Amino acid sequence: MSGALTVREAAREDIPAILDMLVDDDLGKTREDASEAGRGIYDAAFDRIAASDNVSLKIAELGGEPVGTFLLIVIPGLALKGMLRVEIEQVRIASTHRGKGLGRKMIGWAVGEARRLGAGMVQLTMNKSRTQSHRFYESLGFTASHEGFKLYL
Amino acid sequence: MSGALTVREAAREDIPAILDMLVDDDLGKTREDASEAGRGIYDAAFDRIAASDNVSLKIAELGGEPVGTFLLIVIPGLALKGMLRVEIEQVRIASTHRGKGLGRKMIGWAVGEARRLGAGMVQLTMNKSRTQSHRFYESLGFTASHEGFKLYL
Repeated sequence: MSGALTVREAAREDIPAILDMLVDDDLGKTREDASEAGRGIYDAAFDRIAASDNVSLKIAELGGEPVGTFLLIVIPGLALKGMLRVEIEQVRIASTHRGKGLGRKMIGWAVGEARRLGAGMVQLTMNKSRTQSHRFYESLGFTASHEGFKLYL
Repeated sequence: MSGALTVREAAREDIPAILDMLVDDDLGKTREDASEAGRGIYDAAFDRIAASDNVSLKIAELGGEPVGTFLLIVIPGLALKGMLRVEIEQVRIASTHRGKGLGRKMIGWAVGEARRLGAGMVQLTMNKSRTQSHRFYESLGFTASHEGFKLYL
């Protein structure tokens, strides 16, 4: 558990570790299926991510141990003078590793990657119930300028 | 200007009409470059969208006249049991055609497309200053459950 935080593309073998992090969350614990029977849906979703040019699943490690994950989405568009955006989704830090500044390093990595890709903006949405995380993103320079609307189908 | 609203993939030739709609907006009018000199950046952005499997630029027409536009982004992910999401961005209706229910039809089309693609959620963010549009999306069944954070680079 020592050393610097590294971020890499997740492999199929990382699915169980990522699923552990998705379940290890106040909101996530009731809406995932970590049973053996549920495995197929996550494998299929992973394959769909892997086949997507604009979407990549990342895993963050500390001394080889998975401690964080997020999804990075590259969004080209005409608006704002053709500004490229990077969106971050499904950000998680393992509960045993919270409060150590790893989230800050991981999001810092994502912002650096967005710059490297030529993006002019990084965006994300967060459930309004996650008030502590709101302060976290504001401390990183993000502005809560938008309402995030969801429609479940 | 009669007939039903149709939605199709935007072509390169549609860029000027889409740019007109981006400029024809309280927030957009100060942040686009509709001059001849600015054309290159929009052409390049269009090419980047066209090369993206997960991102498509749509144009809505009424009797062959462009009246609306939006960007549709398909986001696979592991969370929520591998739920596929569709995100809508850069939604505009030409000012001369507002108040006629066209936005409702256009977003209805996007929601139908999301279902067709197998998505479990449609999401979008909107500047908090666009209060009238907030009520519009709520009337379509969307819930403003999230904060939308932006970081300009």
